[in-house]
Amino acid sequence: MHQPDWKPNRSSQNPLHLQIYEYLKQKILNGEWTVGAKIPPQRILAQQLNVNRSTVVTALEDLAADGFISSKVGYGTFVANNTWSIISSGAAPDWKTYVESGVHESNQSIIQEINRSEFRPDIIRLGTGELSPKFLPTEKMKGIFQQNTAQELSLSYTEPKGSYSLRTAICDYLKRKGIETSPSSVLIVSGGLQALQLISLGLLQKGSVVFHESPSYVTSIHVFQSAGMNLFGVPMGEEGLKTELLPKIKRQHHAALLYTIPSFHNPTGHTMPEQRRKELLQVCSHERLPILEDDVYGDLWFEEPPPEPLKANDRQGLVLYMGSLSKTLGPGLRIGWLVGPEQVIDRLADIKMQTDYGSSTLSQFAAAHWLQSGLYDEHIFQLRKKLMFQRDTALQILEKYYRGIATWKTPAGGFYIWLKLQEAISMDKLFKRALKAGILINPGNIYDHKDSSHIRISYSYAEPAQLEKGLIRLAEIIGEMSSR
Amino acid sequence: MHQPDWKPNRSSQNPLHLQIYEYLKQKILNGEWTVGAKIPPQRILAQQLNVNRSTVVTALEDLAADGFISSKVGYGTFVANNTWSIISSGAAPDWKTYVESGVHESNQSIIQEINRSEFRPDIIRLGTGELSPKFLPTEKMKGIFQQNTAQELSLSYTEPKGSYSLRTAICDYLKRKGIETSPSSVLIVSGGLQALQLISLGLLQKGSVVFHESPSYVTSIHVFQSAGMNLFGVPMGEEGLKTELLPKIKRQHHAALLYTIPSFHNPTGHTMPEQRRKELLQVCSHERLPILEDDVYGDLWFEEPPPEPLKANDRQGLVLYMGSLSKTLGPGLRIGWLVGPEQVIDRLADIKMQTDYGSSTLSQFAAAHWLQSGLYDEHIFQLRKKLMFQRDTALQILEKYYRGIATWKTPAGGFYIWLKLQEAISMDKLFKRALKAGILINPGNIYDHKDSSHIRISYSYAEPAQLEKGLIRLAEIIGEMSSR
Repeated sequence: MHQPDWKPNRSSQNPLHLQIYEYLKQKILNGEWTVGAKIPPQRILAQQLNVNRSTVVTALEDLAADGFISSKVGYGTFVANNTWSIISSGAAPDWKTYVESGVHESNQSIIQEINRSEFRPDIIRLGTGELSPKFLPTEKMKGIFQQNTAQELSLSYTEPKGSYSLRTAICDYLKRKGIETSPSSVLIVSGGLQALQLISLGLLQKGSVVFHESPSYVTSIHVFQSAGMNLFGVPMGEEGLKTELLPKIKRQHHAALLYTIPSFHNPTGHTMPEQRRKELLQVCSHERLPILEDDVYGDLWFEEPPPEPLKANDRQGLVLYMGSLSKTLGPGLRIGWLVGPEQVIDRLADIKMQTDYGSSTLSQFAAAHWLQSGLYDEHIFQLRKKLMFQRDTALQILEKYYRGIATWKTPAGGFYIWLKLQEAISMDKLFKRALKAGILINPGNIYDHKDSSHIRISYSYAEPAQLEKGLIRLAEIIGEMSSR
Repeated sequence: MHQPDWKPNRSSQNPLHLQIYEYLKQKILNGEWTVGAKIPPQRILAQQLNVNRSTVVTALEDLAADGFISSKVGYGTFVANNTWSIISSGAAPDWKTYVESGVHESNQSIIQEINRSEFRPDIIRLGTGELSPKFLPTEKMKGIFQQNTAQELSLSYTEPKGSYSLRTAICDYLKRKGIETSPSSVLIVSGGLQALQLISLGLLQKGSVVFHESPSYVTSIHVFQSAGMNLFGVPMGEEGLKTELLPKIKRQHHAALLYTIPSFHNPTGHTMPEQRRKELLQVCSHERLPILEDDVYGDLWFEEPPPEPLKANDRQGLVLYMGSLSKTLGPGLRIGWLVGPEQVIDRLADIKMQTDYGSSTLSQFAAAHWLQSGLYDEHIFQLRKKLMFQRDTALQILEKYYRGIATWKTPAGGFYIWLKLQEAISMDKLFKRALKAGILINPGNIYDHKDSSHIRISYSYAEPAQLEKGLIRLAEIIGEMSSR
């Protein structure tokens, strides 16, 4: 549910249904709703405008009487006419066909629903991959623009690879993780998702196969499929990705890339042990299978840091490494980075220039300042404590209400608890029933479409009281569904 | 030429060639330069590191003696070995093949060269589509973060269509141009280029045809071609786009969209008169051919505003309208907008979410503040005067040195003068010779590949003295080439 453009004025002399009639008529006359376009159902309109459904019905009847809209039983209500179409003998383009014929796939409808519902003020967000706004340093962010910093703000285009001072800051930051690289091997991206998109457009042939852990975050997005690649899920064991399977299936599937999240995996929360990381590097090196290492959660450890990133032990340029500030400083910055062999970074920088001409310089300026001034480290130090408290709260609630319903493991960092239900149930039904009850969850089937017994619970967003309220209600819903 | 990662330390006791040897060895050992990768030519390395070529040669000889690199006559020098490859029995992936097999086309090599050369500090930029940094309000931009503003800064994700307060601000701003719309019909994009990309991915079928003015900015980018569309240039007459040709060629070419820049056209500087705008709307309405109106230069008029945008007279939802702050407040913001029928905007917002999860909230916050506070209007008022002075300076120089070499028209706004040479010459040669002389131009063939007699001169970037120096030298080069 988006914020509506307009709400009726309740203190006006003009009756509500006439105000709504005028508003809708204007949308039609402005061409925002074109002839042939379907208009939202009465129920939704009433909800958006915060009026009784009967008020909406009256307004729609008036519009129909004036010939602006008409209904087809079983199909809904459509814009029929906008008076201009009669005068001008022309007609609106058939936008419906356009919208349906684009190359790029739509998001899964469940993901679209999640994207929309996240902006409902009343919703309890139990599944969201985002920090609560109260964990984000908004005031400090404004503050850095007031200081005389080492960085200079530029409002011009940046170099294709992004601001040089930010790339330098990232090299220094990565050095502490054991990754040795230089600015010319770093590309600034507008968040991790864009890194995936650039790779899908810039490095892979149509029809090639991308391996990933099963389940994986990557199956919840269409970025590789929309570019014509196929995904293949490699099973995870206790230690993470079953590396022993790779040589055989690599040959079977002509894999071009392996996508992995070794630390605080999304959605399982799992961290790959050091030994398995070594094996993975060895196998992939032997098979000449490049690795895309997604390390966006790496800084969010609780008791001890995770093992070194794969990239820290890659001496051959086998690993493309991606990081981001979205899970730490705030997704609104839209700042991430990709590190890899220089020729790969050169190619992807060229495509980035063709896509959006680089990332916001305000964001790049801010990111460089946070990383270089030590502010980032201070923030992360505090954030870890807060997140760990959130995790512990979630675990206590689970302990109290989910024994017998589900099992789970304790994540050592990141955002997620991967709840395994005792009994398989319809994920789609669960999602819908929870949403109706005001609870937004990320069901397991968006990470593995065959899955019907997992839920990704995120402790990064909801307040403890909300977490409790939401999880209790969710347990009830699961209970109701299981007993049937 | 990018900023190099490193420069040798001249006050070190360690000889330069040894320092360079170590630096290059490290790049190989880190996997930044992978086995098989081609390394930059000696000449380029010497230039980047600011040393004699012989110093580079010594360092490379040492690397070759140690087995790290080897040369193939006629092909260049390659990384041969990184010691790790021997130990591990594995090998780097064949990145060269990856880089060559991506779906997305590379930028034209001349565009890549322009993108790179723009960052050379010594270059005179005569062709660039960018304002001089001295026209950009950098200090004021920092200032707005210090005030208590009506806007609230958020570091979270925004709604799929972008920040609601920015979309509201844009609706108010567009109203003054005669465009009536509401926030739900507005999509925030990371600059105009991204709007084009979203349209190419979201609305058009592979193989469909996009009409555009010939010449046009759109032929200098690959955005539609990389998504599988074809471009078709419609000739321009005195009044702009020859609308009378449209019905016939529309049928011949199954055009799906017409892209036009009615005000201060890029590259010709031409402004479509009111009457022609009406005809264009009428013809396209009759043919049901959607229009994509690019109005990124619309605010940059000198004596009087251009006619109303096409969108202001579109009552049918025929026109997708794009605007941007890149040509006014600064491209570094990466903020633009697309206005169109709600169903189209919904679809493109979904793809935007799949591409980069929205634009920087720092930039959106700043943009909303500039637009709503009146600061934007003040800035534009001043900017117009400065740009007009730049234009007049350029015209005076042309008057003095280009009579007999070329003809041109006086642009009424925007950035560009479209120089028509008296004699056709090789555009590629002209570009290279100018670049060698330290002058960066945008030759006409990037806007129409058959063109060999135009140059896009931009008065938005270079200082008057630089403009004069560059234009004089360019006239000499043209003279030398013509007489041959």
